[in-house]
Amino acid sequence: MTMQKHTLALVTEDNDKYLSLLKQRQLPDLEICSKGHAASIVLAAPPKLADSLDCYPKVQWIQSTYAGVDAILEKASAPRFQLTNVKGIFGQQISEYVLGHTINHYRHFALYKQQQTNRDWQQHHYQSLNGKRMAIFGTGAIGSHLANVVKALGMIPIGINRTGIPPRQSAFAETYHINEVNTLLASVDIIVSTLPNTRATHGIFNRELFAHCRGVLFFNVGRGATVDTPSLLTALEAGQIDHAFLDVFINEPISQECPYWHHSQVTVTPHIAALSFPEQVVDIFAENYLRWRDGFQLQNLVDFNKGY
Amino acid sequence: MTMQKHTLALVTEDNDKYLSLLKQRQLPDLEICSKGHAASIVLAAPPKLADSLDCYPKVQWIQSTYAGVDAILEKASAPRFQLTNVKGIFGQQISEYVLGHTINHYRHFALYKQQQTNRDWQQHHYQSLNGKRMAIFGTGAIGSHLANVVKALGMIPIGINRTGIPPRQSAFAETYHINEVNTLLASVDIIVSTLPNTRATHGIFNRELFAHCRGVLFFNVGRGATVDTPSLLTALEAGQIDHAFLDVFINEPISQECPYWHHSQVTVTPHIAALSFPEQVVDIFAENYLRWRDGFQLQNLVDFNKGY
Repeated sequence: MTMQKHTLALVTEDNDKYLSLLKQRQLPDLEICSKGHAASIVLAAPPKLADSLDCYPKVQWIQSTYAGVDAILEKASAPRFQLTNVKGIFGQQISEYVLGHTINHYRHFALYKQQQTNRDWQQHHYQSLNGKRMAIFGTGAIGSHLANVVKALGMIPIGINRTGIPPRQSAFAETYHINEVNTLLASVDIIVSTLPNTRATHGIFNRELFAHCRGVLFFNVGRGATVDTPSLLTALEAGQIDHAFLDVFINEPISQECPYWHHSQVTVTPHIAALSFPEQVVDIFAENYLRWRDGFQLQNLVDFNKGY
Repeated sequence: MTMQKHTLALVTEDNDKYLSLLKQRQLPDLEICSKGHAASIVLAAPPKLADSLDCYPKVQWIQSTYAGVDAILEKASAPRFQLTNVKGIFGQQISEYVLGHTINHYRHFALYKQQQTNRDWQQHHYQSLNGKRMAIFGTGAIGSHLANVVKALGMIPIGINRTGIPPRQSAFAETYHINEVNTLLASVDIIVSTLPNTRATHGIFNRELFAHCRGVLFFNVGRGATVDTPSLLTALEAGQIDHAFLDVFINEPISQECPYWHHSQVTVTPHIAALSFPEQVVDIFAENYLRWRDGFQLQNLVDFNKGY
């Protein structure tokens, strides 16, 4: 009797780490190969795999190490494989990022740091986060986790999605359909985008949307292509946005000439709001692999039509 | 028939604001006086009142605008008045302060800010707050509020108090008696002191206590006198403490010569972790005043023996 072997190729930023973690798992009937040609399964960071997809002619299943898979979708319009992403591990990290920067801003931490350098003891009035309204675009796992956390800090999380229906058992105080968002925005203190890059979200944060804002903090922890850069710069200038916290960009790293770097109202971070910790990704892969081996449906399947 | 009038003196940092808020309230039978001699009630910031207590010979009730009343207790060993403080309004602000600085630290926000100045795109590994153990000294209103908030961020709040018994319905995962804390400290990532300044807490954070720590973050948002400064500096040097966030000090403002100002492992803030917002204080005073007027017991009475 011949057991079917599955062949896995690694295309990540840290193949050595993944190799070591996968060896510890001793997953049954799984071979890890160095040549792509034979691989039926690929564990991959989407931007790394995107340009070399043709090197994996036999691939049947790609497990992304990211939540965002747009880099692969752009290169694979007629899918010849199943694609899964990682879910449920980024909400915590995204929440830390958003909350940390929000507190920094309202509580003047940068100013106090400057004062310490000058041995200057001076108090400044501030607003508490209590009662601040946060509009969260995207009510999936990340947006829902964030809603939970900010609610515990007295803030009011408001969900925005494609249905206007809140996810079950979520902390959202209100939920709006993306098409009815404009009137909402005038009453919002903070906007957080967790949106993926799809045809529907491309450039969604544009001049028209920003025109409804009044001095908000704007976070982009989703995808760079959802924001129209000239519109954002205009909105900052006009005071519609007070400060933008940008972790994702259309091209990464951003160029040396990018106007964000030295903009006093923009905080740039190098796509670190949530990193894929290999230990967590391997947990997800291992569970999915056993389903694959036994012929069950994969978890976290990406819908090629929706784009996420 | 003559109604008894009550006479209130204001000794705060912002008497004009308090006067305006109190006038709006139109509290019955209450006169606000400019001369201390006649006042039966004083609404006061403790440090401002401490040196002029003798100017209020008829005072029967002092409502503090702070949580900490040690400045008054030091001057009034044989109390001739009732003393109340404000409770329940600082937990939110203290939680923001602790959480913001904790996230900044673990998520390298200062480093990324520096990188932005240099147009430098570079990711750094980090630890999530998830699973971090936070020892909270003091399980009163502030400590309990903080426990709730950090639990929502996946951290494990551990209470330390004078009984070893957790407050009812609190989020503390474990609670220890102050005398059994030493063995605990080796397993703790973050220490937060919300302790008042009393005989029992004076210099409680000393060499012996710090000796049990391993690279912790140390927050003092309680009172400066609870920390022995030379011990803290030694513990920073020895790596027992990785970074200290100090908002309260024995003498405020601290002197220009204070070693904390330019210590790379110390963050100094000018007692702003929680400010008394006059609107909230007046809410508390008004409710207490109506009790006073009608002969009921005051809320938030300070126990002169305990010191809080």
